[in-house]
Amino acid sequence: MELSLEEVTKLTGGRVVAGESKNGYRGLAALNEATANDVSFLGNEKYYDDYLRTNAGLVLVPSKVKEFPEGPVYVEVENPSYAFGLVVKKLSAKMRSFKPGVHPTAYVAEDVRYNPEKVSIKANVVVESGAVIGDGTEIQAGAVIGEYAKIGKDCLIYSNATIREYCELGDRVIMQPGSVIGSDGYGYEFVDGAHQKVDQVGIVVLENDVEVGANTTIDRARFGKTVIGEGTKIDNLVQIGHNVVIGKHCLVIALTGVAGSSSLGNYVTVAAQVGIAGHLHIADKATLMARTGVMKDLEGDQIYWGNPARPAKDQLRSIAALARLPKLMSDFRSLKKKVEETESE
Amino acid sequence: MELSLEEVTKLTGGRVVAGESKNGYRGLAALNEATANDVSFLGNEKYYDDYLRTNAGLVLVPSKVKEFPEGPVYVEVENPSYAFGLVVKKLSAKMRSFKPGVHPTAYVAEDVRYNPEKVSIKANVVVESGAVIGDGTEIQAGAVIGEYAKIGKDCLIYSNATIREYCELGDRVIMQPGSVIGSDGYGYEFVDGAHQKVDQVGIVVLENDVEVGANTTIDRARFGKTVIGEGTKIDNLVQIGHNVVIGKHCLVIALTGVAGSSSLGNYVTVAAQVGIAGHLHIADKATLMARTGVMKDLEGDQIYWGNPARPAKDQLRSIAALARLPKLMSDFRSLKKKVEETESE
Amino acid sequence: MELSLEEVTKLTGGRVVAGESKNGYRGLAALNEATANDVSFLGNEKYYDDYLRTNAGLVLVPSKVKEFPEGPVYVEVENPSYAFGLVVKKLSAKMRSFKPGVHPTAYVAEDVRYNPEKVSIKANVVVESGAVIGDGTEIQAGAVIGEYAKIGKDCLIYSNATIREYCELGDRVIMQPGSVIGSDGYGYEFVDGAHQKVDQVGIVVLENDVEVGANTTIDRARFGKTVIGEGTKIDNLVQIGHNVVIGKHCLVIALTGVAGSSSLGNYVTVAAQVGIAGHLHIADKATLMARTGVMKDLEGDQIYWGNPARPAKDQLRSIAALARLPKLMSDFRSLKKKVEETESE
Repeated sequence: MELSLEEVTKLTGGRVVAGESKNGYRGLAALNEATANDVSFLGNEKYYDDYLRTNAGLVLVPSKVKEFPEGPVYVEVENPSYAFGLVVKKLSAKMRSFKPGVHPTAYVAEDVRYNPEKVSIKANVVVESGAVIGDGTEIQAGAVIGEYAKIGKDCLIYSNATIREYCELGDRVIMQPGSVIGSDGYGYEFVDGAHQKVDQVGIVVLENDVEVGANTTIDRARFGKTVIGEGTKIDNLVQIGHNVVIGKHCLVIALTGVAGSSSLGNYVTVAAQVGIAGHLHIADKATLMARTGVMKDLEGDQIYWGNPARPAKDQLRSIAALARLPKLMSDFRSLKKKVEETESE
Repeated sequence: MELSLEEVTKLTGGRVVAGESKNGYRGLAALNEATANDVSFLGNEKYYDDYLRTNAGLVLVPSKVKEFPEGPVYVEVENPSYAFGLVVKKLSAKMRSFKPGVHPTAYVAEDVRYNPEKVSIKANVVVESGAVIGDGTEIQAGAVIGEYAKIGKDCLIYSNATIREYCELGDRVIMQPGSVIGSDGYGYEFVDGAHQKVDQVGIVVLENDVEVGANTTIDRARFGKTVIGEGTKIDNLVQIGHNVVIGKHCLVIALTGVAGSSSLGNYVTVAAQVGIAGHLHIADKATLMARTGVMKDLEGDQIYWGNPARPAKDQLRSIAALARLPKLMSDFRSLKKKVEETESE
Repeated sequence: MELSLEEVTKLTGGRVVAGESKNGYRGLAALNEATANDVSFLGNEKYYDDYLRTNAGLVLVPSKVKEFPEGPVYVEVENPSYAFGLVVKKLSAKMRSFKPGVHPTAYVAEDVRYNPEKVSIKANVVVESGAVIGDGTEIQAGAVIGEYAKIGKDCLIYSNATIREYCELGDRVIMQPGSVIGSDGYGYEFVDGAHQKVDQVGIVVLENDVEVGANTTIDRARFGKTVIGEGTKIDNLVQIGHNVVIGKHCLVIALTGVAGSSSLGNYVTVAAQVGIAGHLHIADKATLMARTGVMKDLEGDQIYWGNPARPAKDQLRSIAALARLPKLMSDFRSLKKKVEETESE
């Protein structure tokens, strides 16, 4: 597979702003690793030095760039990272192809509803009784689909993922390897000196176009549903508690925990290692910076940081002040001494 | 399955304080989602507005509630959440039934000690040589039981969980999907410019009634035992290091890490995203608030917060002060100026 | 298996400094649990009280120890923990033996390149088409090796681990249970109100002697490679983002996250629950203390702490100051009052 300059400009909607094409393009590489047959891109100013020295054959650039060192051909596009993604998709189209069929080592219970000619079920997959699998869905080796689970169309369930009983996935849902949907919520009542398990009889619903990261865990509701809204993308090693409701098109990044019964609006961004306590609401378009700890409801359209969470600019000011605090303390002692000396004069 | 009002009061030990029963109850729902056939409950004051507007058929209420809007029948109980759990258990009894038998796709080594008519081993489970499985235990699809591991009675091992060689589980232990028991402890000696692996030849012991959350990991001891005490409940994505000893009836919540050789007493509560360094002791009934970092031994019967951990009320005071620190700094500069002006007069 | 005193001194290069041998040694135990047939060691001063009271038969001690209570025989060695490791290795040699062969329930695609007489593939393992497995490698039950993955010699892949397509492992790599190599990087472009997935077509490379902890996840590169350098040891529940490059002989401890495109030099130590933002560089021999948050490049040969990361001694000073801040605030109010009274006199 090789793309010509013309194919790249057509694919990306870009236009040549400098340089000439010397060949076709087969590879994809970062600026500092690319060679003459590679397409690369400038997506982040941090890499501008690499840009000035790159040996790439073709570089996708944003409109603000005005320097074009000799060598590559430069194609100006609106969003270089996105445009590069289109090239990646084209060049790697054959890497993952959907091949329908059920591997002989897979176990699919007799009453599972699916079309064996339109799904792909790999080796040692288990699909328990009563489950439903939509057309175009692929389930990779070692994944387990529990009783009466429902999986929509064109989903991709990676190896060793687990979907427990009765949970429901929409269409085009992706579950990375080792992810777990429908584990029991963490609920106990303290009776007679011991923590008695509270049955967790609800389910998890992943709406259309949700992605769940590797080894991420989403607990089933105590009763009712834990819901991940349409288009929400969850990174690796995230913990979502029982009865949590996350809105549409949110981002939830690695090692974050959302405790039971909390809810997020739409377009909320939760950076890495954030903790959100239980029974809270985070409103639409709120952004939580990494390592924030949330202990109260938060209004939308704002950026938060710190533990406990505060508007990010307040937190930033306190952090700057904290760095100067040891100096303040010694200045204070000096001033106090001075005042006391003045007094005793 | 349907319960009458009389069955609910009998089951929960409650008494009707307002309203009348119009039908039987089949469903379970939160106050804001319940309809006429559902049982609901008021377990948290945060939901009092939902309570006043609920369409539930039957509501379990605590004794302090004095308003009973028309519609539902109200049953007063000592602990509404616990009482609701009893109703849940009754109504969902058939959801998970134990069906003994060994699935033909499972591999159980010849010398495994178990009664195939009294355990349930699902599809593609692997039980290696020398393992022992107690009666009433269920092992779900894809789980792996290592050589010479011992599992007690009435345990429930969910899909894709791993119990490594020689580890021991008591009775009624629950392992959620993807959890790992007996991974190697993180131990290396730095010799000749490289980290040389220190063999980890101990085991993990989970005592009776322990629960281990999804994708949680508990490392085997370097030698001897890593121990999780009776009745302790561990949430999802928790890391327990080698040779850790956790006492009885503790709670350890999501994304927490306990480093090697530390020990917790009994009835310790560790909230989410806490970190406990190695070789420390946390005494009985200590409570660590979320995101606390522990670098020293902690006395029992106290609440801790912060990084490093301090008594929670001290930490709270410092956090409040930190928020006012930028103002203090500008006030200090004003005062200093005033003192200097006074002096120079 | 039993070792004599002479065998222990020969094995460890130690010399007897006190006591007499009464028997051979079969067991391994901590000082406070050891009995007459056990070897134990004093590796950490915290356990000196246990040392003075131990019932061990043989104790490995460092040269600085000068008290030798009656009972055990004492063997002085340079590094007691390391020496103990040698004894452990000797006494437990038979615990894990490599038995080549492919279990009949495993599925190995026809075109996989391996020598069935020199690898050990356990029950229900899946090895997909095009993969390569080196001699001496063991793959435990339920692990999945994706298409065209390459695994070197003498590797140990534990149960339910997943290596996705095209990823490459060097020699002597260890993957603990449930670990995931090659999950998709977390990359989206926000287009038309939704997060569009950016294809992740790169791979993960684990160089020689890398160890990956239980349920740790390492994402494949967007394009090119995510690299873990030779001899680097990663603990449990760590998240490594796409295109991250970690140098040689680093330590990365539990619950840490390294975001996309960041790089670590050689001999970097990252303690538990650290977060490193994307596109940063941490230079050689930097040490990050537990729970540090990194938002800028960091120079090497230094210890960092705090969020955001600062030189540890500065952070320590600020933390000490923070604890005294409430008092400073009340002292400030007193001083201010005094100054104002002085003025108004």
